[in-house]
Amino acid sequence: MNSKYKVIKFIKDKFENVEDLISIEEPLEISLKYNDKTKWITKSISITMRTPGHDQDLVRGFLFNEQIIQKIGDIESIESFGDKVGKYDIQNKILVTLNNSQNIDISRVKRDFLTNSSCGVCGKSSLDALEILKKEKTPRSSPKLSKDVIIKSPSILRANQSEFAKTGGIHASGLFSSDGSLISVREDVGRHNALDKMIGNSLLNNHLKPNDQFITCSGRLNFELVQKVLMTNIGLMIGVGAPTSLAIDLANRFDMTLIGFVKEDSFNIYTNNQKVIVN
Amino acid sequence: MNSKYKVIKFIKDKFENVEDLISIEEPLEISLKYNDKTKWITKSISITMRTPGHDQDLVRGFLFNEQIIQKIGDIESIESFGDKVGKYDIQNKILVTLNNSQNIDISRVKRDFLTNSSCGVCGKSSLDALEILKKEKTPRSSPKLSKDVIIKSPSILRANQSEFAKTGGIHASGLFSSDGSLISVREDVGRHNALDKMIGNSLLNNHLKPNDQFITCSGRLNFELVQKVLMTNIGLMIGVGAPTSLAIDLANRFDMTLIGFVKEDSFNIYTNNQKVIVN
Repeated sequence: MNSKYKVIKFIKDKFENVEDLISIEEPLEISLKYNDKTKWITKSISITMRTPGHDQDLVRGFLFNEQIIQKIGDIESIESFGDKVGKYDIQNKILVTLNNSQNIDISRVKRDFLTNSSCGVCGKSSLDALEILKKEKTPRSSPKLSKDVIIKSPSILRANQSEFAKTGGIHASGLFSSDGSLISVREDVGRHNALDKMIGNSLLNNHLKPNDQFITCSGRLNFELVQKVLMTNIGLMIGVGAPTSLAIDLANRFDMTLIGFVKEDSFNIYTNNQKVIVN
Repeated sequence: MNSKYKVIKFIKDKFENVEDLISIEEPLEISLKYNDKTKWITKSISITMRTPGHDQDLVRGFLFNEQIIQKIGDIESIESFGDKVGKYDIQNKILVTLNNSQNIDISRVKRDFLTNSSCGVCGKSSLDALEILKKEKTPRSSPKLSKDVIIKSPSILRANQSEFAKTGGIHASGLFSSDGSLISVREDVGRHNALDKMIGNSLLNNHLKPNDQFITCSGRLNFELVQKVLMTNIGLMIGVGAPTSLAIDLANRFDMTLIGFVKEDSFNIYTNNQKVIVN
């Protein structure tokens, strides 16, 4: 599932207004209904950010891979429910009724295990639930970058990765000054960990000066990465790869400039198009 | 942090025994100690698979980005603890003592929130804790593949992705017969979701015949993806990118053949080297 987004594409020294297809990312809440000896229990067990489509396949595979079910027959019924919400008008909840309740070890469910029976994110539009962030945050910074700084930042990041050249399989996040100089870089097999490490190090050393900085991440940009950068009040984020719909929507909501698909002579500006001035 | 692994590299029609550097992936358990009005509480709040190194930066950034702390001064102390474990002889636990306890909203912690105070994975070598899987599982299948089938599977996968050509930002997992024909493919912005969807669909349609099948995933291979494939009893898994150390270790433990870094005329065999016969 994908959606059209307006994008400013810089290519061969020109800016063009185009429409780009973006992969959709939306939260899905998975709930189980099972018989706990004497009574039926309904419990929200997981939230995952997924691309809508084949949601029931996703849940079948998730429950099997997490050993909640041993065979497809352990599922009595599976249904999508809840209001259709958000800009894509889709259901973001799945309820699975199990008939293998005697075998259930609920503690095995590992992905984002929740203690509450509802999450507050998936019931309505996921972005509405994030309004709380907006209230607590000051306006984003808007550093102005030259096109050259944007295009070079991924290669500077890679040149400063001590691990990538060795293994070819590790992500990185870098904190940059608006003049393109690298302040801090951290690596990890997990994109979110590389960003946590870099932000944690920058906090410790008091390196965060949001008005004059941007962050560049290897790989694609998703909701989680944008949410982390929002916490720093830094208003410009660059990804080497493509963003998801929710990454763009979240950046838009907080006036953050999101740039992606950075190549040798091109990049895309996905959000905050009015304010970002690229010299 | 990386480690040397023995690899069989196929390149230009020859097999070579080489040593490759692999990015390490190990679980890190994060615990908080905070004052809940009348008493001190210590609680395990998160487990993340990370590359060891800068662990304390990781935790600082994680707590800040999850809004558990608002500033670095909210951390009273932070220490790595626990026995040094595993083949890399490292500590996999972090304890953070907070001094902003009045402001803590523990429900905000989102990544793999645990209800128990210990996880059973990080306290000892993570693979030891997975012995339970071994006992419950039958031996892996060992389909025999031609080199041609291995090399072509990523491009077949991509050619059958309806979304990738449109957005350039979506992962896929495919179930293949040993003759190289594609049985099922599913896509998602999350690698783990794409694999869950594909396995869920294959379960529903009774398509899983482990003895004669393999699974190919876009991107890199980590612990989570290998663990999911183990559930299907399929004994051969191909990744377009690099595997992590824990992906290799887990595959090794269960006699699964792991192949990665597949390019037009080359690939690496990481595990089960003795048994896999590539014609």
